[in-house]
Amino acid sequence: MKKYGFGVDIGGTTCKLGLFETTGTLLEKWEIPTDTSNEGKNILSDIAKSLKEKMEEQIIQEEDIEGIGIGLPGPVRRDGVVPTCVNLGWKNRNVGKEMEALMDGIKVKAANDANVAALGEMWQGGGRGCKNMVMVTLGTGVGCGIIIDGEIVPGSNGAGGEIGHITVNPHETIPCNCGRKGCLEQYASATGIARIAREHLAQKHESSLLEEIGEVSAKAVFDVYKDGDETAESIVEEFASILGNALSNLACVLDPEVFVIGGGVSKAGKPLLDAVEKYYRQAAFSSCDSIRFALASLGNDAGMYGCVRLILE
Amino acid sequence: MKKYGFGVDIGGTTCKLGLFETTGTLLEKWEIPTDTSNEGKNILSDIAKSLKEKMEEQIIQEEDIEGIGIGLPGPVRRDGVVPTCVNLGWKNRNVGKEMEALMDGIKVKAANDANVAALGEMWQGGGRGCKNMVMVTLGTGVGCGIIIDGEIVPGSNGAGGEIGHITVNPHETIPCNCGRKGCLEQYASATGIARIAREHLAQKHESSLLEEIGEVSAKAVFDVYKDGDETAESIVEEFASILGNALSNLACVLDPEVFVIGGGVSKAGKPLLDAVEKYYRQAAFSSCDSIRFALASLGNDAGMYGCVRLILE
Repeated sequence: MKKYGFGVDIGGTTCKLGLFETTGTLLEKWEIPTDTSNEGKNILSDIAKSLKEKMEEQIIQEEDIEGIGIGLPGPVRRDGVVPTCVNLGWKNRNVGKEMEALMDGIKVKAANDANVAALGEMWQGGGRGCKNMVMVTLGTGVGCGIIIDGEIVPGSNGAGGEIGHITVNPHETIPCNCGRKGCLEQYASATGIARIAREHLAQKHESSLLEEIGEVSAKAVFDVYKDGDETAESIVEEFASILGNALSNLACVLDPEVFVIGGGVSKAGKPLLDAVEKYYRQAAFSSCDSIRFALASLGNDAGMYGCVRLILE
Repeated sequence: MKKYGFGVDIGGTTCKLGLFETTGTLLEKWEIPTDTSNEGKNILSDIAKSLKEKMEEQIIQEEDIEGIGIGLPGPVRRDGVVPTCVNLGWKNRNVGKEMEALMDGIKVKAANDANVAALGEMWQGGGRGCKNMVMVTLGTGVGCGIIIDGEIVPGSNGAGGEIGHITVNPHETIPCNCGRKGCLEQYASATGIARIAREHLAQKHESSLLEEIGEVSAKAVFDVYKDGDETAESIVEEFASILGNALSNLACVLDPEVFVIGGGVSKAGKPLLDAVEKYYRQAAFSSCDSIRFALASLGNDAGMYGCVRLILE
């Protein structure tokens, strides 16, 4: 194994770049803007230029680099082809091959950003020591990365781990962004929790600390939940029941060692984890009793970590 | 690759043994009784004796055998250890190692029977040509084997693919064999379909061909369904809606290339497949539109095929 690796997490606005030791230590991280003009044709060359400057600055030779891992916000096929990536303007690009050419033959691998984040958490984060893991990212939507025997499950259409679109409520009348109704994402994302909160506030007659905060957000709900507010409690119970039950179904399918919960909503920490786990335990199939719950620990760096892990295979 | 392989599918009553060419051709199959007395201590030696006799009879040398694959009715850990197998009376047996010793060092691999059946269908059956597949076995219960990138997903507790215990109806009052309520198995197994049928018959006032048959079974339901009986139609629609919706949720998780439907109930053939697929298509997440449905085609031999595929890895 060579000494260094680069992790490159491409987002729609900025690219996060990291220089790592292949043992798992992040040595340095920096960002460059993502230039999405002209169908994103400069993105890879901008990244290559920045990586080469870093190699020069740190006096690192090509032969000391194990490879470059790339995460990007769209589906990536097993052969490295990105059929389409709306946020970057890409269509039918072989990211691996193109980047290898730009980096003078250094090995490059690419994968979906939610999946590399899961791989990063398995390697150096909340799922450390596990090879079978489901990472659930509670952000604007509900993302998920599935790792089986140390490998990402991308799915045959790039839809592996799209658990945000599991139907959890067939009676829902409001449509999800995907056009269907009753998706997990409509209840367990930041947006979903805020919606549940507004519904509870509209129905309740008692006053709630939540009303005093003004804008009803997932963060606000968990803030007053920790203070023991009853309305917040009923909101969190509804959210946790839906997510805990969905994960108990997922356990019957994948039987992972651990569920790692990440994303902005997970900043609520242990009270959130405890609430979800309570409902999971009530619902779980007996063989899946021992599955653990953990919080993600790498924050926004998880993707970069996972990119480096990707090239170590 | 050597020329021959043995597939051994151990059941609670009989062991199915098959001599295969490693290209995938079943040359000969036979059965021996499973001796479960004395905590099943003779099972492996009985099998070894039978395999050696076959080698002698067919004049096959050890060096022409790639290996022996074993399927058994219980969880098998990745290291080949069977923690417990109630039907065989086994506890903490390393089946791979024990069998290798009995067979003079020929390579042996073991896995759960539902999982090897899925592997068999992927290799030479309904999922031929695919590497990402979910096989659903509709029998007394609902079994499932998940294959990702050509490999079985056993789960960290051997509960990978236990989709029969996904909760599909949180309002169910009758308990499942697992002790929980509303499991997929309670509606989509042979037993489940018969139960739905009895409920429909009790509620209906019109006469049904089904009543004339006497014993209400899944087979009887599909027989009169094909004849256009209205009560059977409503029963099949209920079954197909529950299974089709559950598979649409599974698609958001695993995104396989194909769902292969097997087991006794699947003998109803294309009318069953069409009914399930109709509800799947109505519910599916758009990225998973292209997932195909196929009938299993190897019947009771699927396990033996999968055992041989197991040793080719």
